[in-house]
Amino acid sequence: MRISELSAASGVPIPTIKYYLREGLLPAGEQTSATGARYGEGHVRRLRLIRALLEVGRLPIASIAKVVAAVDDESLDLHHVLGVAQYAIAPAVEPHTPDEEWTRARAEADTMITDLGWQIDPDAPARDELAQAVLTLGRLGMPADGEALRPYADAALRLVTEHEIGTIPFDGPREATVESLVLGTVVHGRVLDIMRRLAHESVSARLLGP
Amino acid sequence: MRISELSAASGVPIPTIKYYLREGLLPAGEQTSATGARYGEGHVRRLRLIRALLEVGRLPIASIAKVVAAVDDESLDLHHVLGVAQYAIAPAVEPHTPDEEWTRARAEADTMITDLGWQIDPDAPARDELAQAVLTLGRLGMPADGEALRPYADAALRLVTEHEIGTIPFDGPREATVESLVLGTVVHGRVLDIMRRLAHESVSARLLGP
Repeated sequence: MRISELSAASGVPIPTIKYYLREGLLPAGEQTSATGARYGEGHVRRLRLIRALLEVGRLPIASIAKVVAAVDDESLDLHHVLGVAQYAIAPAVEPHTPDEEWTRARAEADTMITDLGWQIDPDAPARDELAQAVLTLGRLGMPADGEALRPYADAALRLVTEHEIGTIPFDGPREATVESLVLGTVVHGRVLDIMRRLAHESVSARLLGP
Repeated sequence: MRISELSAASGVPIPTIKYYLREGLLPAGEQTSATGARYGEGHVRRLRLIRALLEVGRLPIASIAKVVAAVDDESLDLHHVLGVAQYAIAPAVEPHTPDEEWTRARAEADTMITDLGWQIDPDAPARDELAQAVLTLGRLGMPADGEALRPYADAALRLVTEHEIGTIPFDGPREATVESLVLGTVVHGRVLDIMRRLAHESVSARLLGP
């Protein structure tokens, strides 16, 4: 298809497509003349992925370029491609001085993950996020050890193994798998948070309502 | 205790305490002289609540004033006080035109809540949040009906009934109950999201890793 048809098929304006081509986010089409090129279904899929990372993952273009490079790197197994995407969309942890309080919180987070028996990369940003949450809970005088947070780990693991893992299309093109992971992580994360607050209200109404 | 002792006990600087007194967030102390007043444990608890709403709930002072007024209104039952706090800390839904797409998404969200049998106020802001998520999922071509989102509702309800409800101190002063709800909603919501992403990584490592 021509660039105008690619634009119609993807809903992405032509100038934006040209920008993605220049930035290397979108591979060049097959050159058909001095000024024309032909695009295929792979380009439509790639544009869907870029939009998902941009609009739902709210990633800057430089981070999207890294995810796209991982998708294109055939030497990486799918677990690592998903890891690059997952780490890119992780919320940044506020900077912290590596003082004693932080070191203790980070050690607590690492112990928690070890005790769960989960396979997590030593450099996973979520380790810092968990340490940050442990720190915040501690400062607020709330329990923040493995026992206190275990119900959250159990609920999350059960949701992932019993439901979410079954919704990811592992056997399609890599773009589709990564797109599904990004959308699922962000939007379903929001759904889970909303459902939890609704459940709070409903249980409170039953227990304390008039 | 004097204002200097209240400041030491709560960690809140004296000028900030005076500001809260002027704004009516903190009730006046017992007047002991033309310029001095005496404060009690109730003031310490109130300052803890204000800090929780400010630093963890990230609420503006005007919203904190509403929560504090609900805590002080003896005619409100605890369910309503918790509701005021819960609604105040709910993330704002982006403005939307009430077009056909939105009306359908909102109706889908309402049907979902009815089918769950949950007791939710017709004006609960989380209804709009859920409609927004339904809209986003639909636009992304992902399933967004009650069946697709049921696992999230089930996971949330189970976590709330089997664990979270047991951690809220219902029989103490209202400040303590509201503070616990606000901290729990925000910080434990973050913990659940982190655990879910860690579970994704661990399950992915098992299934797809080298």
